Amino acid sequence: MKKMINAVESLLEESLNGFAKAHEDIIQLNHQPHFVSRKHKAKAGKVALVSGGGSGHEPLHTGLVGQGMLDAACPGQIFTSPTPDQMMAAAEAVENEAGILFIVKNYAGDVMNFEIAGEMLDYPHETVLVSDDVSLPKDHPTGRRGVAGTLIVEKIVGAAAEAGATLAECKSLGDRVNDCTASMGVALTSCTVPALGQPTFDIGDNEIEMGVGIHGERGREPMDLANATEIVEHLATAIDAELKPQPGQKILLHVNGFGATPLMELYLVYDLAVKYWQQRGIEIERSLVGNYTTSLDMAGCSITIILLDEELTKLWDAPVHTANLRW
Amino acid sequence: MKKMINAVESLLEESLNGFAKAHEDIIQLNHQPHFVSRKHKAKAGKVALVSGGGSGHEPLHTGLVGQGMLDAACPGQIFTSPTPDQMMAAAEAVENEAGILFIVKNYAGDVMNFEIAGEMLDYPHETVLVSDDVSLPKDHPTGRRGVAGTLIVEKIVGAAAEAGATLAECKSLGDRVNDCTASMGVALTSCTVPALGQPTFDIGDNEIEMGVGIHGERGREPMDLANATEIVEHLATAIDAELKPQPGQKILLHVNGFGATPLMELYLVYDLAVKYWQQRGIEIERSLVGNYTTSLDMAGCSITIILLDEELTKLWDAPVHTANLRW
Repeated sequence: MKKMINAVESLLEESLNGFAKAHEDIIQLNHQPHFVSRKHKAKAGKVALVSGGGSGHEPLHTGLVGQGMLDAACPGQIFTSPTPDQMMAAAEAVENEAGILFIVKNYAGDVMNFEIAGEMLDYPHETVLVSDDVSLPKDHPTGRRGVAGTLIVEKIVGAAAEAGATLAECKSLGDRVNDCTASMGVALTSCTVPALGQPTFDIGDNEIEMGVGIHGERGREPMDLANATEIVEHLATAIDAELKPQPGQKILLHVNGFGATPLMELYLVYDLAVKYWQQRGIEIERSLVGNYTTSLDMAGCSITIILLDEELTKLWDAPVHTANLRW
Repeated sequence: MKKMINAVESLLEESLNGFAKAHEDIIQLNHQPHFVSRKHKAKAGKVALVSGGGSGHEPLHTGLVGQGMLDAACPGQIFTSPTPDQMMAAAEAVENEAGILFIVKNYAGDVMNFEIAGEMLDYPHETVLVSDDVSLPKDHPTGRRGVAGTLIVEKIVGAAAEAGATLAECKSLGDRVNDCTASMGVALTSCTVPALGQPTFDIGDNEIEMGVGIHGERGREPMDLANATEIVEHLATAIDAELKPQPGQKILLHVNGFGATPLMELYLVYDLAVKYWQQRGIEIERSLVGNYTTSLDMAGCSITIILLDEELTKLWDAPVHTANLRW
């Protein structure tokens, strides 16, 4: 295993310390337990948005804390849920007389720990579960995984909270965004988790993993290495079948790199995805291309679309100022 | 070779098309010859900044075109200089009654082609050569390579041009920034150039390439795989020996990923670099951490420092609005 680290045990702490130093104008880092919160607490009466999850997906979630987006994020060890005490401490630090909204990717550990934190919390709170990965069937026993659509939920609900939406409104909006968001990913290589020291899954030189998860979960089917047009067609068809956008529908198109994919390839995938939906009469109203919901050093990408209406577009466009997303 | 592409021959064109579609609010793409320019031409009397170089380093340079930074960028084929006709066409498109400044990384092909373009150009023009890579000796026959410091030159001179600096002032400022900027990089893996189809250089499982270039040029020495503290110490010592910052000196510290390095590792490297210079009494006044001057899918990073004064800090802080850098 080749990584620029000192030791598996200190990786998260050292990395968070660097993150906090690089962005001390935007965020602050709490130790024992670990959470990142805004440097300047939001004005009173704003619903506080708290997210979190295993590390290794950066900039999700710590890089998305700041004006117009999250109030706090709890980083777990790599690909491991943060603990309820992190969530409790984060929620208490950012609570602002308007309740707490937990935004949680749908994984058993995250869901359980956020639930425990919620039960112990003395403040009103709601939870939005993100489950945008259409590579699993809708009736999968543990539900669908939350992947790159999580950033979209956090951005849109973040803007609404900033504009004064109530806790109930934020919860309802988050659920609505999740319902009109669908993603699917493909891996060309496996990631290597430092504690494991070797690739999470084997993949042949002429194989790709279609429908892969962001923790190196195997996809729904191995496929022969295909050209980009075929890969995009495969991902887009699964997404399209789920959301069934009609001609004239406006969408946000998000091409997300898994960490080791050059921007050149991500923009090429974006170009092909635009063509796919434009041929079906869909209007690409907004876009986001880059490495946002990563899986350490995995090569590959996911495609996400979100069905937009005027409200969602306006919330997407609202100013955001975080370490790793801003406009 | 595993890449999300359709064919080597169409990769650049397809990628540029996607880039142009994703950022049509900021830039426009010219075909035949290829260049990217601002969507909205700068106000009359502003010096026009034109850069360019081989592709594969994205977001450098195309992602840095926009308000407060470049006026145009010319993308060559991967790791191959753009041609003089691209540079001429770009310069003529953005010339704005105040002359053209070429910002050129110091590689033989780029230097020659920008010279040819300059000779054919009917407008006043100057060239800033960037040569910040201290892994080569100062008296190297072809001079030192331009690497991650290029972005810093483009940002700072871009801000000065926006504020009304003359062509002579921009040229002089660019040279001054180059003189107080030093970088060095380390690779954990080689990149794979699509046209070649295999890694550019061999590197053992327990080796790293210290002082590597951004085109997969071998470093100045292979080294045994080291921990992050040792790697940072090695890079920082070479940089420090070059610029010799004195206690109390303010610097901008830039940790740049080569494309396949997770943000977690880059922030960890940043933390260690901060400690290195703080122990020497240096003040880390500004920072930039991320994948900005990449080398396709190479794993590794470079460290860059820039000696700041009040003027440079103010220009660094000035607003910038490009596809891939903005504040």
